[in-house]
Order: sequence, then structure tokens, then C-alpha cells
Amino acid sequence: MTIENISQAKVAGGWHKQYTHDSVTLNCNMRFAIFLPPNASKTKPVPVLYWLSGLTCTDENFMQKAGAFRRAAELGIAIVAPDTSPRGEDVADDEGYDLGQGAGFYLNATQEPWSRHYHMYDYVTEELPALIEANFPVSRIKSISGHSMGGHGALTIGLKNAQRYRSISAFSPISNPMQCPWGQKAFNAYLGNDFETWKQYDASELLKQAEAKLPILVDQGDADNFLVEQLKPEMLQAAAKEHDSDVEVRIQPGYDHSYYFISSFIDEHLEFHAAYLNQ
Amino acid sequence: MTIENISQAKVAGGWHKQYTHDSVTLNCNMRFAIFLPPNASKTKPVPVLYWLSGLTCTDENFMQKAGAFRRAAELGIAIVAPDTSPRGEDVADDEGYDLGQGAGFYLNATQEPWSRHYHMYDYVTEELPALIEANFPVSRIKSISGHSMGGHGALTIGLKNAQRYRSISAFSPISNPMQCPWGQKAFNAYLGNDFETWKQYDASELLKQAEAKLPILVDQGDADNFLVEQLKPEMLQAAAKEHDSDVEVRIQPGYDHSYYFISSFIDEHLEFHAAYLNQ
Repeated sequence: MTIENISQAKVAGGWHKQYTHDSVTLNCNMRFAIFLPPNASKTKPVPVLYWLSGLTCTDENFMQKAGAFRRAAELGIAIVAPDTSPRGEDVADDEGYDLGQGAGFYLNATQEPWSRHYHMYDYVTEELPALIEANFPVSRIKSISGHSMGGHGALTIGLKNAQRYRSISAFSPISNPMQCPWGQKAFNAYLGNDFETWKQYDASELLKQAEAKLPILVDQGDADNFLVEQLKPEMLQAAAKEHDSDVEVRIQPGYDHSYYFISSFIDEHLEFHAAYLNQ
Repeated sequence: MTIENISQAKVAGGWHKQYTHDSVTLNCNMRFAIFLPPNASKTKPVPVLYWLSGLTCTDENFMQKAGAFRRAAELGIAIVAPDTSPRGEDVADDEGYDLGQGAGFYLNATQEPWSRHYHMYDYVTEELPALIEANFPVSRIKSISGHSMGGHGALTIGLKNAQRYRSISAFSPISNPMQCPWGQKAFNAYLGNDFETWKQYDASELLKQAEAKLPILVDQGDADNFLVEQLKPEMLQAAAKEHDSDVEVRIQPGYDHSYYFISSFIDEHLEFHAAYLNQ
């Protein structure tokens, strides 16, 4: 569990740092970023918000563009952002931006050639938190959030691991991947054609089965080009209603799919999570 | 004075928009970005903060990374970010990152091959504000800020045009370009070896001559790799002291030269400018 620091910058009184490490889960070298608020110390470990990014992103997009640090510093929350897939010359890839490197979909692939490296579900739920908790002044208290493909990741990982997370939020999540082109392409490649397996990575399906009911906040812009074909928040709302879950889906008028949207509401997501993380 | 809209995204209740236009001053097509706060309207035009970026940047760096929109929206301030030089295949360039395209230094070049296009001083002080005031719901009340090379630009342009701007601020500015490698390389190429001309683009020299005394706020990180060799805020402080000017230079411990630094203090700069813009 050796990690190597490759960058650090003071921000909002705390620190943004990037690390690389050899991932045993993903069978390749990985990079992640962490924001540590100014009050983080070994004697007073802070809770962590895990942020999962969308297609084509790395650990950097959120950290550079979300504008989250000032409020996270005030609230005393660390933020961890992994990469969005395994990486490297030896790692299987695809010409499309929506499959392969940069498009891990936060699942454990079962199909060749993906199954050798594409285990982002295990990486985000097991290896990465263990690494973070062993190396930084953080507690084991955590919540999870993400954007688009990462919103799908946050919802599915949170719903499947309700005992490990305090709260879930998402911006513009792929809410019902079994029923949209992005999800169908990825699930078919990574998981084959076993629809029962697909259901284990579909937020709208998981919500129907979920035993514990974590609080969930979703923000979705109504000027998002991907809204109708790919994101389908109405399917999540329907499943939440059916299951009587604690899901708030807010449609934000005029906002698109970009980080300009995320930066407009990230403070409210941080406050939402802080209410549970700092309980 | 035709401008073409090429992107727009709602952010913090307002709008981020990018435009291109054929610049008569620079003799090429240029791109700029504007943030309009939610309260901007023709019947209630808002003041403008001009932001000048640093070496290698475009109109996008500040808009994507500074995290300025929420506070600017609250304060009712528009923000305009031009590109950092003329651009295009026909525009002279250099292999170095610190000369040519992306490195206009906000001056009017007098030397070949630069003098055909490199008139960023005229562009920022004349053509761009005229364009902005003709096309957007903004007033003629303005302030100016910038980072690194753009901090140099903000200081020199503000000091030379005290009647046009209400206040000046800078992050990590090149404070005395005549005495540092970046400035000497650029001034020698763009202006030749006439040191009297150089003085007209050197903030520390201009401060000694300035008639009007605009309020100036400068933030500088003490972990900035460029501090000692290139930035030299102590020269600006010395000139300010000599001239009894209203200059506050704050050395921020632990911060570097990046947008993580800018994002940590941009709200305070916006509040500083708002006190003069909204008078």
C-alpha cells in the first residue's frame, strides 16, 4: 500500500495533493487526488466525500473546476477523487470515448478483454478507501457523489453499500443505464448479456431492491444535451416513489451538463453531505 | 463590431458566454469570455471586472478554474476575460512559451515581426471595452485584475489609465518586468532596447510616476516557484512606499503560482473591487 506524492498545492487553507500507486485491484498504476481541509489532523480525523467523475475525466476535472474547496474547508470535509478507469498501455481500450480507458463505469467487468483490469467497483469500495484511511488523517465516515457516469457510480455504489456511506448525491447521473445507449454499450462490453448482472449496476433497479434508505440528492439541469436520451432521472424518481425512498431530484432550469453547473450547486451538495458526515 | 457567440452555459444563476470577433486592433480573429451576473439588464447595467490571464493561458483558464462566479453573482459584477495575445497561423510566434502567441504581455509591440499584430494594450484598453459596452448590459464602470503576466497587465494598464478604472488587483504579478528574465525577453523582442519605452510597461516604474492613486490589492504566495526570479513584489512595495501609494501587498504563506491559489482568494478580490465598482 505504498503511495507516491506527485503534486501538492495549498488551497482554501487546506491542501490539494495527487498520488500514484500500484493498484492490486486494477492491476495497473493509478492516480488519485485528495483535498484535505485545514482542520484535518491525526488527532482529529475528518470525514471523506468520495467524488466519481464522468466519461473522459481523470482525478483532475473536479479538483480544478468544481470550486468546492472553500466550503469543504469550512465544513471540515476531505474530498477524494479517483480516476475513471484503469489506465496504461497494457490496459484494454476502445476508440470510443464511452468505453475503455476513461469510461470504467464503476463496475467489475466479467468479459474479455476488460476483466483483467476493469474492476472499478472493487477499487472504489475496497482498495481506495483502505489506502486513504491508512495514509491520511481521515475517519472511516464517508459519503459519495459524482457526475454523469460518476453519478451512476455514486448512486449504485452507495445503494449497494448503505452501511458504509452516510449519504449519496449526484449531478446529472446516468440514472437507468440499462435503458440508455451509454449504459447498454458499456454493460454489454463489460458484463456480457446477462441482464440480472446489469441490474446490479443500475441505480433505478437497485433503488427498488435497496434495504437501507440512504438520503439521496440529485441535481439535473434541464438544458443538458444528454438528459432525454442518456440520463433519465424520471426513472430514478419513479423507482424512488415506488419504493418510498428518501430521494430528492431537483431539475435546475437553464443548466447544462458542464462543470459550470456543478460549480453552481456543489456547495449545497457539500452542505447536504455534511449534515450526515458531521452527525 | 460584430461578435459571434460560440458557447454559453448557465452558472451561479448568471451566464458564461464565449465570443469570437475580428479585431481591428490585433488584425486577427479573437476570442473572449464574459460572465454576466443574474441581475444584469439593459435597464440596470452592471459594472465589469476585466481579468487578464498569464503566460500560455486563453480566455478559459480563469473562467473554468477560479471559482469566481458565485460571489460575482452575489455582488452583481460582470467579468470579462480576453485571450492573452493575438492568435492564428498568420500571427508571428516563438517556440518559447514566454514569447509570441499566449504571451502578449499587454503591450503595443513596436518591433518586427511582432508589431503587425501584438497590440494587446490597445485591445484591452480600447477595442475590447467598446465591444463589451456596445453588446452587453454593462456600464462603463470597470476595474481590472489579473494573474502573473496578467497581473503585470492589470497593474500597468490600471496605472496608466487611472481615470478609466476604479481599482486594480493582481495575483502573483510580474511586478518589475524590466528586472526579470520573462520581462526582459519579452520587452527586448516586442519593444527593442529603448529602456524609456520599457518603463511605460513596468508597474514598479509606473507607480513612481502615477498621478492618480488607484487602490491596489496584490496577493502573492510565498511557495511560488517564480517569486524570487520573476515576480519581485518587493520592488512594487518599495515603489509604493516611495510614492506613498495605496498598495496592499499580501504575502500568503504556503501558496503557489496556480489557480488553486487564485481560487482561495478570488472572493476577497471581488469584494475589494465591489467596494469601488458599486459606489
